[in-house]
Amino acid sequence: MFDTAIFCLFLFQMVFMDTTATIPTGAMAERWNFKNFIIYGFWVGMFPYAFFGNWVWGGGWLAQLGQTMGLGHGHVDFAGSSVVHMCGGMIALSGAAVLGPRLGKFGPDGKARPIPGHNLVYVMLGTFILAFGWFGFNPGSTLAGTDHRIAIIAVNTMLCSASGALAACLMMYFKFGKPDPSMMCNGMLAGLVAITAPCAFVSSWGAVLIGLVAGTLVVYSVFFIEGKLKLDDPVGAISVHGTCGAWGVLSLGLFANGTYGAGWGGVHKLIKGGEVMRILNDGPASIAKYNEMTGSGPTGGWTDMGVTGALGKLFHGPMNDWSQFGAQCCGTLTCFVFVAGFAYVWFKCSNLIFPIRSVKDDEMEGLDVPEMGAECYPDYHLTDKSSPRVG
Amino acid sequence: MFDTAIFCLFLFQMVFMDTTATIPTGAMAERWNFKNFIIYGFWVGMFPYAFFGNWVWGGGWLAQLGQTMGLGHGHVDFAGSSVVHMCGGMIALSGAAVLGPRLGKFGPDGKARPIPGHNLVYVMLGTFILAFGWFGFNPGSTLAGTDHRIAIIAVNTMLCSASGALAACLMMYFKFGKPDPSMMCNGMLAGLVAITAPCAFVSSWGAVLIGLVAGTLVVYSVFFIEGKLKLDDPVGAISVHGTCGAWGVLSLGLFANGTYGAGWGGVHKLIKGGEVMRILNDGPASIAKYNEMTGSGPTGGWTDMGVTGALGKLFHGPMNDWSQFGAQCCGTLTCFVFVAGFAYVWFKCSNLIFPIRSVKDDEMEGLDVPEMGAECYPDYHLTDKSSPRVG
Amino acid sequence: MFDTAIFCLFLFQMVFMDTTATIPTGAMAERWNFKNFIIYGFWVGMFPYAFFGNWVWGGGWLAQLGQTMGLGHGHVDFAGSSVVHMCGGMIALSGAAVLGPRLGKFGPDGKARPIPGHNLVYVMLGTFILAFGWFGFNPGSTLAGTDHRIAIIAVNTMLCSASGALAACLMMYFKFGKPDPSMMCNGMLAGLVAITAPCAFVSSWGAVLIGLVAGTLVVYSVFFIEGKLKLDDPVGAISVHGTCGAWGVLSLGLFANGTYGAGWGGVHKLIKGGEVMRILNDGPASIAKYNEMTGSGPTGGWTDMGVTGALGKLFHGPMNDWSQFGAQCCGTLTCFVFVAGFAYVWFKCSNLIFPIRSVKDDEMEGLDVPEMGAECYPDYHLTDKSSPRVG
Repeated sequence: MFDTAIFCLFLFQMVFMDTTATIPTGAMAERWNFKNFIIYGFWVGMFPYAFFGNWVWGGGWLAQLGQTMGLGHGHVDFAGSSVVHMCGGMIALSGAAVLGPRLGKFGPDGKARPIPGHNLVYVMLGTFILAFGWFGFNPGSTLAGTDHRIAIIAVNTMLCSASGALAACLMMYFKFGKPDPSMMCNGMLAGLVAITAPCAFVSSWGAVLIGLVAGTLVVYSVFFIEGKLKLDDPVGAISVHGTCGAWGVLSLGLFANGTYGAGWGGVHKLIKGGEVMRILNDGPASIAKYNEMTGSGPTGGWTDMGVTGALGKLFHGPMNDWSQFGAQCCGTLTCFVFVAGFAYVWFKCSNLIFPIRSVKDDEMEGLDVPEMGAECYPDYHLTDKSSPRVG
Repeated sequence: MFDTAIFCLFLFQMVFMDTTATIPTGAMAERWNFKNFIIYGFWVGMFPYAFFGNWVWGGGWLAQLGQTMGLGHGHVDFAGSSVVHMCGGMIALSGAAVLGPRLGKFGPDGKARPIPGHNLVYVMLGTFILAFGWFGFNPGSTLAGTDHRIAIIAVNTMLCSASGALAACLMMYFKFGKPDPSMMCNGMLAGLVAITAPCAFVSSWGAVLIGLVAGTLVVYSVFFIEGKLKLDDPVGAISVHGTCGAWGVLSLGLFANGTYGAGWGGVHKLIKGGEVMRILNDGPASIAKYNEMTGSGPTGGWTDMGVTGALGKLFHGPMNDWSQFGAQCCGTLTCFVFVAGFAYVWFKCSNLIFPIRSVKDDEMEGLDVPEMGAECYPDYHLTDKSSPRVG
Repeated sequence: MFDTAIFCLFLFQMVFMDTTATIPTGAMAERWNFKNFIIYGFWVGMFPYAFFGNWVWGGGWLAQLGQTMGLGHGHVDFAGSSVVHMCGGMIALSGAAVLGPRLGKFGPDGKARPIPGHNLVYVMLGTFILAFGWFGFNPGSTLAGTDHRIAIIAVNTMLCSASGALAACLMMYFKFGKPDPSMMCNGMLAGLVAITAPCAFVSSWGAVLIGLVAGTLVVYSVFFIEGKLKLDDPVGAISVHGTCGAWGVLSLGLFANGTYGAGWGGVHKLIKGGEVMRILNDGPASIAKYNEMTGSGPTGGWTDMGVTGALGKLFHGPMNDWSQFGAQCCGTLTCFVFVAGFAYVWFKCSNLIFPIRSVKDDEMEGLDVPEMGAECYPDYHLTDKSSPRVG
């Protein structure tokens, strides 16, 4: 009567969808109207996540790029750098653009002014809760504790998070002479976001390198989005999830070393003495051919490679497969065009149902009482002493 | 030398007992004397929890109601809506009644005055820590990861928590024009409390419905207990755990759909073409009869139903079994009469050993320093600006 | 290509190493220069932890004390009371000694002045996060969920943490008339630290006793280190991890009851009718002898004991083995001499690369802005009203 595997997958995917849905709340914080947010909640799970997720994980056209266009194993994303994080980041990008910056975020001269969070302890705690959850997210995406790859996935996740935090720390140190704790948190999250797609496919050194790039990238992205795009992203969600999500799927297309994912996307890449042949899973004839080539007969002796990136040989992979990188670029571009575009249209339209932006007085007061009906800290003095929004 | 299964069960039950013991601390907060609390801690694990728990989970008279009185499968409670939560709620009810309200909670006109918690972030964080723990509580109550029902239990737990939060949010919105974050937290907890008993026995839609009712119920219960009963329950523990714990076991008696729990409480309910027969587990003759009826012989072909509620057919169950609802009512009533009564007597008596209520000056100062010897925030200004206790 | 067991062990050991590395941050808080801390981070994983860990868990000389010196099963430490906690505590001891006390910690009369933490809620939350993690640490150290001992380990961990908290609470109550919440937290952690080594080897009552001693010991140790040694340890890390880590490995040498760990350290202790014989794992002859003695033949019937302490018979063990206690003393002494000494030299030398102590003005201001470049609570008034550092 019940298929328990479907219930398991539903629960797991529910968490993934909800992560996507929650990412934009960071970029749109402190000025997003609650009613608009509620209808957004219904929309996001039903449309952009469902479509893009199906294209990548449901056997859709991005998953089939290997079979249809000869691009590696198609767009590969192990645990959601693109499906979850870049999707969320693209929605955040459109949301922040439609919403506009918080009052006082940009001065009369157009320069961004810092509005620091009111409690760094919460930032650290939240970051570590997320990091803890990631060890369910990535290793759990094997969907089976019996897949031995799970140990490598967990180690890659840990290495990449640490190297992301380290890179962001050093970057801030070199730029400003001081490590910034909240940027170190963003660096750690950047590493985690980036390793989400390639965690099963890269070596330990690959994971460290991905993290170093992600931690560097997130710092530049934060300054670029604020300084050049003039978008106000209070927590850096667009940079952490959008930019580094894109980097995550692209890094897979560069660094995957061929040790995992043979047959992924319905594509077998066989190698023997440097020669490579592709066999698709498309019927009894291809299976017979596959069995013959991987067998021990006179025409056999071919090895079935896993997913291999454009720089695979650098990581002791069997070849450099630029077509895999092509597939990853397709997925990334699709995510940017489709999800960001679709979200932009949604936010513009939903604004006609419930205004997307809180009214000005509510924003100046802080949304706690006007929108939620409760004060967060009724017994504390708060001064906003460092906020440009005062006066 | 060691039976490890007993150690496992001890650890698991220790957590259950401790949950029961901790629930009243919410309803009795800010005025309960610490020494009285300590002796309470010894009492609560040894008496009310141990008795009621044994009646339900230890094969006691409530578990046997199916065999002895013909009431369904006896009082069924999968993970403790009654044994843990309603028990805790009933102790909280008696405790709050014996303690009396906090100074200044009710004005000279008898009207309740709000005393908001000093930090809503802690409320949210604590709620999510509890929700996380529930995924050990409910699915863990299978006592075996190999019971495939575990996936359905986890999904039901999630669905019911979300629908509970949603219902409380909408209810507050319709009543006051604003969603109240702390009431949304109580709604989520209400859903989790309610699904604790029926999580293994109901369908996904049943779980959603249970949550919607629980989230609505908790709002009315909070206002009823404060407005009509004139009891001061600072966190709403009586409503969340008591009221919604009762709703949880009753909802099982209504919505259980017969897909799980065949033979529970020593009762087999066999069905064939609309006809129902009950066979008890009480000897070799009944086992032979059972085997014959469920076999493929000429007198066979009967199906062994799981636990089925009074509205079972509404959820595609094989029948509507009102006797199961009767068993659930017996358990609920027993919990109310025995646990609340026993706790009332205890609090009255323990008051003679150590006074249950802190002295007035300590209460006005806040119990931190007078009772615990330490200030929680030595470096902050706190004003109690919204508290009716000042002046 | 990948040995997943090695990846698993790497991940697990990484956490252990990191725990060791983090412990001293508590004792050296509020005055440790961040750059010095960074180079410390590289050093600590590569040297003291790696050496001592290898001696105990890598088959080094402490693990071989049973074979080489006839001391029980060698130095036994199940999950790291000495390798992780005492190591961390000894580094903390040397660090605090080299750093010197915080400005204003000791008055002109040489008496210690209290500098309470600014938020007790964080103390409680952090303690419970640690306690939660311990249930991965200790039971996880079986390295296999199929080892049934895991249930006993989890129960012992829980019992010892509770009895540690209780003992510290009572101790403070008797000394000062009030239970101190932060000391109860230290008592709980003291119990957890102490049970880390013996968790698999002692009975439930042994675990309770170990916790009671640890909770008492931690209170005396805190006052001794502050009052007699005149060391400033802001969070009590030296006492919790150092003192109670030592007590943990010693308690194993006292209370181990012989039900687990047969053959540990390459030593088999066979017993028959009160007579004890030792057989080492050192070749085919010894294996043949072992098989003969434990077999059912005329010279057989001997039982292979697990690790047994000096007071083993008190806990229904087969004998009192003082040599095991000797091995534990060797390990403890080695940890003290080697790790504390090595760390002292390191801190003195690293001081020449980057000064170990923050500059005075930074320390008075609080290190947040001067060292990290960010204020933790930019919108709050903080007064340090209870701090002796002001004025």
